[in-house]
Amino acid sequence: MLRAAVSAGRQTLGYNRSGQGCQAARSDGFAATTDLAEALAWAAEQGALIVLAVPMPAVASLLLRIKQIAPGCPLTDVISVKGAVLQQVHSAGLLDRYVGGHPMAGTAHSGWSSGHAGLFIGAPWVVSVDDHVEAAIWSQVMHLALDCGAVVVPAKSDEHDAAVAAISHLPHLFAETMAAAAAEVPLAFALAAGSFRDGTRVAGTSPDLVRAMCEANADKLIPTLDRALELLNRTRNSLADNGSVAEMVNIGHAARVRFDHLTRPDILTVALGEDNWREELAAAGRAGAVIRSALRGPGSR
Amino acid sequence: MLRAAVSAGRQTLGYNRSGQGCQAARSDGFAATTDLAEALAWAAEQGALIVLAVPMPAVASLLLRIKQIAPGCPLTDVISVKGAVLQQVHSAGLLDRYVGGHPMAGTAHSGWSSGHAGLFIGAPWVVSVDDHVEAAIWSQVMHLALDCGAVVVPAKSDEHDAAVAAISHLPHLFAETMAAAAAEVPLAFALAAGSFRDGTRVAGTSPDLVRAMCEANADKLIPTLDRALELLNRTRNSLADNGSVAEMVNIGHAARVRFDHLTRPDILTVALGEDNWREELAAAGRAGAVIRSALRGPGSR
Repeated sequence: MLRAAVSAGRQTLGYNRSGQGCQAARSDGFAATTDLAEALAWAAEQGALIVLAVPMPAVASLLLRIKQIAPGCPLTDVISVKGAVLQQVHSAGLLDRYVGGHPMAGTAHSGWSSGHAGLFIGAPWVVSVDDHVEAAIWSQVMHLALDCGAVVVPAKSDEHDAAVAAISHLPHLFAETMAAAAAEVPLAFALAAGSFRDGTRVAGTSPDLVRAMCEANADKLIPTLDRALELLNRTRNSLADNGSVAEMVNIGHAARVRFDHLTRPDILTVALGEDNWREELAAAGRAGAVIRSALRGPGSR
Repeated sequence: MLRAAVSAGRQTLGYNRSGQGCQAARSDGFAATTDLAEALAWAAEQGALIVLAVPMPAVASLLLRIKQIAPGCPLTDVISVKGAVLQQVHSAGLLDRYVGGHPMAGTAHSGWSSGHAGLFIGAPWVVSVDDHVEAAIWSQVMHLALDCGAVVVPAKSDEHDAAVAAISHLPHLFAETMAAAAAEVPLAFALAAGSFRDGTRVAGTSPDLVRAMCEANADKLIPTLDRALELLNRTRNSLADNGSVAEMVNIGHAARVRFDHLTRPDILTVALGEDNWREELAAAGRAGAVIRSALRGPGSR
């Protein structure tokens, strides 16, 4: 995030509680500190956009400090669940300055050495259009995402969370399950090729990170798991009773083909802050459209 | 297969029932025919190694023709289940000439245009060491796999089938399920990034091919599915009851890390045809060892 923002010409200051992380960033020429109060005082002075990029369990205590030191700063985040963050921001009394975000990019690795300035190029970056959001702050978050090379997908927090349960949290738990099941079978790892390597890649993600995102989205993940279990049970019984997996294979293949042929039209005509702008953006995002160049609005450059 | 064998300097003749497929191969300079009798007569005359590379449902009728026209030729296959092929070969009365094979390589695409001569480089290629196999034919199949750039994993058909249920057939059904579940959620495809793209890649495979391999391995796949369902249910209940997915995430992550650090020592000392050679190879394969250069034996060059 820091690399991408700097590479776009932005003035930035990074905060990380880890001295090692900050040292690594400074060695690479970035401004970074382990002193949260210093970082927030700088943000307050600059009126900087604050970007929360911490695991869910660390959010509440950070918000408390922001409320104390930099309550007037616009605020966004890059955390993979949106409903839970929204709730915390609401409790912290910072809702009027907050627009949630979630860039759909990353690797199975974490830490300073795993990032690069091009990480967000072409990635969908959700910017939330919940009822409370202010057009001026929304515009700032949109500009940050576009500066980082992402395409912006406007979405309600609630719909975002249901979608990521299906396309990120379920795949993570499926990957863990496949890795665990194969580990019990002699010879399995010895034969594993592409389908296993790809299918379990994200099981290499740090367990803390996987736990943080799945557990924070339990409300949406449980019904998604139930639906997946229902489909798998049906397939299992069809194989046992009729020797056929045709139904699931046909449905799954058709779904993947549809995904491969997804078109992503541009959102061009909505102006931020106009009547009904949040609903219009949410509807466009739901229909697959994205923002590739900045929409007009209070933050127009 | 044809490309890799020719690229290794072997004399080959391809057969495909599709005129289009043969035409494409011939345009690229390969000998290929749609006339099965002609292909088998050529094989019989040359004493060529016949390689079956058809979906499971086509095996029985091909074996019948081989029995009629080229019953003396050594015979192998590249089909993803071994027990079911073994049974068919036994029924066709060709067991004494047969050594099963399965290169763990491929793409989600099929047809002539999807292949390339380097497809097997570095891939594990199972060569079966069931009780009936003859050392001289085993050696021929080993040489073919090594010529194609693969590493040979010796394995019993039964153990192979249990392993591929876990590392190929289960991942295929999981991919279909993830694609199908996501297709039901508005916004899901619009946000899908790496974990979904990788996790559902093999759902792009031709449905007929997925059905053929899963259904032919139902005996091993059903218990594998049951185990995976048990793990997923336990995870679902732990998330609902305790808000935690820790157990599965820790087990899955540890398994994937172990997989990433797998070492593949060379099998060097077994001589094909010596006392107990099949058992020794099966044990070495089970322990993760592979054949990278030809073992001594009746086929030594």
